[in-house]
Amino acid sequence: MSFDATYQNKSFNSVGTRPLRPDGVDKVTGRARYGADFNMPGQLVARVLRSPHAHARIKNIDTSRAEAVKGVKAIVTAADLPDLTDGDAGLFAILDNCMAREKAMYDGHAVAAVAAIDQKAAKAALNLIDVDYEVLPHVVDVDAATLPDAPVLNEKIFTQGVEPTPTMPSNVANRAEFGHGDVDAGFEQADLIVERSYKTEQTHQGYIEPHACVANCNPDGTAELWVCTQGHFVYRQNCADLLGLEASKLRVTSSEIGGGFGGKTHVWAEPVALALSRKANRPVKLVMSREEVFRASGPTSATSIDVKIGAKKDGTITAAEATLRYTSGPYAGMWAELGAMTSFACYDLESVKTVGLEVVVNRPKVAAYRAPSAPMAAFAVESAIDELAHKIGMDAVDFRIKNAASEGTKSSYGPVYGPIGIGPTLEAAKTHPHMSAPLGENQGRGMACGFWFNFGGQTCTDLNISADGTVTIAVGTVDVGGSRASLSLIAAEELGISYDDIKAVIADTSTLGYNDMTDGSRGTFSTSMATISAARNAIEVMRQRAALMWDIPLEDVYWEEGHAHAAGTKHGNRAPLSVKDIAAEAGNTGGPIAGHSELVADGAGVSFATHICDIEVDPETGSSRVVRYTVIQDAGKAVHPSYVEGQYQGGAAQGIGWALNEEYIYGEDGRLQNPGFLDYRIPVCSDLPMIDTQILEIPNPNHPYGVRGVGETSIVPPLAAIANAVSNAVGVRMAHIPLSPPRILAALNEANG
Amino acid sequence: MSFDATYQNKSFNSVGTRPLRPDGVDKVTGRARYGADFNMPGQLVARVLRSPHAHARIKNIDTSRAEAVKGVKAIVTAADLPDLTDGDAGLFAILDNCMAREKAMYDGHAVAAVAAIDQKAAKAALNLIDVDYEVLPHVVDVDAATLPDAPVLNEKIFTQGVEPTPTMPSNVANRAEFGHGDVDAGFEQADLIVERSYKTEQTHQGYIEPHACVANCNPDGTAELWVCTQGHFVYRQNCADLLGLEASKLRVTSSEIGGGFGGKTHVWAEPVALALSRKANRPVKLVMSREEVFRASGPTSATSIDVKIGAKKDGTITAAEATLRYTSGPYAGMWAELGAMTSFACYDLESVKTVGLEVVVNRPKVAAYRAPSAPMAAFAVESAIDELAHKIGMDAVDFRIKNAASEGTKSSYGPVYGPIGIGPTLEAAKTHPHMSAPLGENQGRGMACGFWFNFGGQTCTDLNISADGTVTIAVGTVDVGGSRASLSLIAAEELGISYDDIKAVIADTSTLGYNDMTDGSRGTFSTSMATISAARNAIEVMRQRAALMWDIPLEDVYWEEGHAHAAGTKHGNRAPLSVKDIAAEAGNTGGPIAGHSELVADGAGVSFATHICDIEVDPETGSSRVVRYTVIQDAGKAVHPSYVEGQYQGGAAQGIGWALNEEYIYGEDGRLQNPGFLDYRIPVCSDLPMIDTQILEIPNPNHPYGVRGVGETSIVPPLAAIANAVSNAVGVRMAHIPLSPPRILAALNEANG
Repeated sequence: MSFDATYQNKSFNSVGTRPLRPDGVDKVTGRARYGADFNMPGQLVARVLRSPHAHARIKNIDTSRAEAVKGVKAIVTAADLPDLTDGDAGLFAILDNCMAREKAMYDGHAVAAVAAIDQKAAKAALNLIDVDYEVLPHVVDVDAATLPDAPVLNEKIFTQGVEPTPTMPSNVANRAEFGHGDVDAGFEQADLIVERSYKTEQTHQGYIEPHACVANCNPDGTAELWVCTQGHFVYRQNCADLLGLEASKLRVTSSEIGGGFGGKTHVWAEPVALALSRKANRPVKLVMSREEVFRASGPTSATSIDVKIGAKKDGTITAAEATLRYTSGPYAGMWAELGAMTSFACYDLESVKTVGLEVVVNRPKVAAYRAPSAPMAAFAVESAIDELAHKIGMDAVDFRIKNAASEGTKSSYGPVYGPIGIGPTLEAAKTHPHMSAPLGENQGRGMACGFWFNFGGQTCTDLNISADGTVTIAVGTVDVGGSRASLSLIAAEELGISYDDIKAVIADTSTLGYNDMTDGSRGTFSTSMATISAARNAIEVMRQRAALMWDIPLEDVYWEEGHAHAAGTKHGNRAPLSVKDIAAEAGNTGGPIAGHSELVADGAGVSFATHICDIEVDPETGSSRVVRYTVIQDAGKAVHPSYVEGQYQGGAAQGIGWALNEEYIYGEDGRLQNPGFLDYRIPVCSDLPMIDTQILEIPNPNHPYGVRGVGETSIVPPLAAIANAVSNAVGVRMAHIPLSPPRILAALNEANG
Repeated sequence: MSFDATYQNKSFNSVGTRPLRPDGVDKVTGRARYGADFNMPGQLVARVLRSPHAHARIKNIDTSRAEAVKGVKAIVTAADLPDLTDGDAGLFAILDNCMAREKAMYDGHAVAAVAAIDQKAAKAALNLIDVDYEVLPHVVDVDAATLPDAPVLNEKIFTQGVEPTPTMPSNVANRAEFGHGDVDAGFEQADLIVERSYKTEQTHQGYIEPHACVANCNPDGTAELWVCTQGHFVYRQNCADLLGLEASKLRVTSSEIGGGFGGKTHVWAEPVALALSRKANRPVKLVMSREEVFRASGPTSATSIDVKIGAKKDGTITAAEATLRYTSGPYAGMWAELGAMTSFACYDLESVKTVGLEVVVNRPKVAAYRAPSAPMAAFAVESAIDELAHKIGMDAVDFRIKNAASEGTKSSYGPVYGPIGIGPTLEAAKTHPHMSAPLGENQGRGMACGFWFNFGGQTCTDLNISADGTVTIAVGTVDVGGSRASLSLIAAEELGISYDDIKAVIADTSTLGYNDMTDGSRGTFSTSMATISAARNAIEVMRQRAALMWDIPLEDVYWEEGHAHAAGTKHGNRAPLSVKDIAAEAGNTGGPIAGHSELVADGAGVSFATHICDIEVDPETGSSRVVRYTVIQDAGKAVHPSYVEGQYQGGAAQGIGWALNEEYIYGEDGRLQNPGFLDYRIPVCSDLPMIDTQILEIPNPNHPYGVRGVGETSIVPPLAAIANAVSNAVGVRMAHIPLSPPRILAALNEANG
């Protein structure tokens, strides 16, 4: 797709305004339909039996007693699902995670599922399924898993990305390396070097809505799935592949989504619900409990990261190096690779090297969480950068400005940057009032930068104009953060009509072409490209209709400001025709007016942010409180600034929770000890100050309006910004996230001898 | 839209085969979701209070006692709906029929509606709504309504279509005239004339599924409607107009439909359900009872028809004339006009004149019923034709063949025919074994012809190709009789892939452009045109993708038999690329592959049928039995012959019920006495013989495959065919439908003196 770049210089009528959100009324009145809010006549309810062991061979499953329970209509185990053991490794991992075949790989791993007429029958049946386990040694810690005496989780895993491929199985599934220059020579040139190891604990996205679906699988190979997801087309493909259905025969409808943040990009129980429906020959509803969400959906990686950075006394970084170990749960992932990619992306470095190591452990399969893997890498790197600035005696912002990447920089992961926002966000931070505000007692200030590369991908929009001139746009990227509003603004802008005359809906998989899921901050970026393209196609149709209505040649009709105009004077003084004028005549001029677009949205603009944070630490308890927080981020072009600010604030809030309190706590037995919001506490409103935001707009040259993704970058700096603030407050360098009261107290005790 | 006519001569691979119906499994397993099978969280149930009077002024409605009932959330009367009294007359009539404003115009007319938390509360509230009626004189009979002393139903109705417009209000709402030549001169040339008056009683479509919907109206002007309908886009427009919503803000989803036959082309309770939802601020479900369906949905017209036909001894018809009076319920309709249009359409006449008179009466508003108005006209005309053939002494088939219209005939209603099927169906009847089979005691044989003009209209198809090469087509014409199968066959034919790789769905109003409703036998005709057009657009995209994959110029890629081929020899020996090959690479060659079409399908081919019927009459009771029945009809091209045969059989079955038994019976008080399937008995399986069918294929030159509409014509001949058979069996000319046992007995008694 290539666009007329002159659009970037236009003045906008709709884009950049802040109209009411179209999903607001439904959501505040409780009428929005989420995953659990759909029902089919005759539906059964499903429940999943989960392993109580972190690692155990499944020797036998006897479902006979459970099948005898009145009201039980179907029980499935891995035996009811295709055996992909010798097939595609990726598909095998997806399916094995949904239903363990040979071994339960983590506490909470599904081993069987029941569909029954009610919850009572389903629960009774779960208790009567007899699983014969052989408990195996387990490992949950990222570093422990790489030790020579660690139990090897999967005899088929040989470290990939190493030449030659090792002949011994290993818990290190992948090795990925990025960088350029001569790091050793760089460190030799350094006057000062910081070298430190960091650790972060596993966290969960904490979305409010548990996974939920209704599945309806027919004997003729057709099926329906109503589901809460970030990507119903991807779910369709996964479920079709896993169950042997044709993609077109599986109609997936995405519900409203009560938070996803990356956690709803993978199928979890959906294939099981479909399998139950197929076996029971009835619709099946499956809703996870909160405990199940924690134990058996996809949290983040726990990490262990070594960073080494050297600089001259003038502040020039001469070399930077990082080794990043990311847990991926029991299956190989790409999380360490993403961490290694993003580590040093904010900086213009002569010599840089990052190595990512993907470590399998007996924890749930890792899923994306908003800029996946970047926050941990940024925590380590931005902590080390901060420490190095202190050592050199430079202001932390100035040090970063001196080394910041800019247009033309060869990034640490390869690509050469176009126009980017890291420098401008740092400059804005430098002059921001927050930066010079006085600090109180026991308070510390920290700042940090963050990067996310963003994604484009396959996208479709159908735009239909009703006879009354109002417009619907049907898109396929699930609205996780306001894209229905932003896409309506985009369509209004292109068509030259009012935002109020547009309604955007998320089409199901049978009524629109394939769309990649809403991840990589691609929703508004990519779908606005498809929407602009569809709108321009519709305008072309309207030009043709206007030519027919006026009975003049098409080339004499031009489009401007939402109207068809007759060019020149030879056609007399014809009043311009509005969209409504043309739409009213559609039935007489060739039929309904529409515009369509299917495209691959290339050129997602990279995104940078700088955060500033003030923390107050209670020296007696080690508890801390965020006093002030400022997010400065480049949006490219903010389509609906309120939503952009909401994304900035939301990412910061989640990062604060991650930095200060959230973590998966495992017992010696490898079982999760805090699978609930009481013991795994995410920040609530009263825990946070109002988060200040500043939107910068450095246009993305690849988008007609300059739009970049904005959803993910905001979670990247907080871990580091908070750690830097706490480190400054307590006078000890904090290197283990979360900075929970016991860890801060320990640091204070250490500092005070 | 113009098409490459060479396609009509192609040999078909998919079209004309009889694959399994895609909706079959869902329907036989009870999983298909009809109007009442959808629920929204928090929904209320609605019930409607209906007038017990045929004609009454509503002096006052007091809802205060009803509002006090626990669980009642909203009550609406006309006062809660816009007052369109002085606005558009058509919209006023639609709304007034949904909820009476000044007067209740028929027994069963809605006067108030309640939404409550359950049926019990709703019913209790209905009993406590106090309506103060002033009962007015009523008239239900078509002829009585035109008498000078008849009560005038609407002081605003002055007969339209008469010059000058009368100054006195009348129950004759419209007069429509068709014809050509000099009828008086024609009758003077006649050797023999038949002149007779006929009457038919009001019938109901008898669909199994009552009207049902779930409405959800939000305070922000957006709304949803799940509804059983033949045309969700039309319902959207009607409801949006009536409630003051923007069309694009109202998302209407059509459920599966348990029969419509024209009766689900009008809104009945849907605007009321939306109004209740808006007032209660909750979703509202409204399901009509069978009694409500009979009393207050849209039955057919009752008619009174005078026919006069003259012919020479050689069998040449010299003149034909008919005056047709059709009831339309309390509001002006177009039913008499349709009857007048179709009366003599089977014949090539020098002089013909038809006058249609639309008569308002105190009965429910008339709706379409499968070839609306044509069966009654055909009953009268084909009875007279039969009588005239007898008088002349000619075989009834030969007489019709001699006068049959053919290509080039100027029809009785204006248009000049293209290639048509009336002659061929008559020739087929003449040689059909049924025609020469012996008759038993008390048996008579009748035959008759029928015509329907069919419709095209606005239509859209979105065709999307999944990565696995399977295809979904999203269409907007509700599938009332198998169009998902026929459209999948059409798409398979165009794309050169298997029927099994295609799934057709009915898109909701927010994901596709406007579609006219499924009426006028337009579903497969018009949507196949859009589907063919969309498929050809997708093929063009696939050619482009193949050119990219091969890195050769687009003009060197041609499409044949479902594959892209590299033309000539200059590009080496490239294996052709299938749809699956190209689809698998879509993500790398520009994104999802789709084809779209929005069009007005012009050129629906007219349709003709000839039916043959043997009837046995019990001389003691007057009851009759259909012994044998044969339908011969031109389909243009039968896309899925089993469905075509089903349409032929279904129309015949309904026509038989209409002819022999079905009728609305009103008491002296103007109240319907038989609003239920026990007292209004439609034919069941055991009442009918297997109906034999013969498909003729005279291609429609306006359709790329030659398709014509097939759904309606089959109900046109049965009334006449049966009446002719009974007349032959009993020896008395039967002129009043239905030929129920009392009427036949009376005729037998008359014949026997």
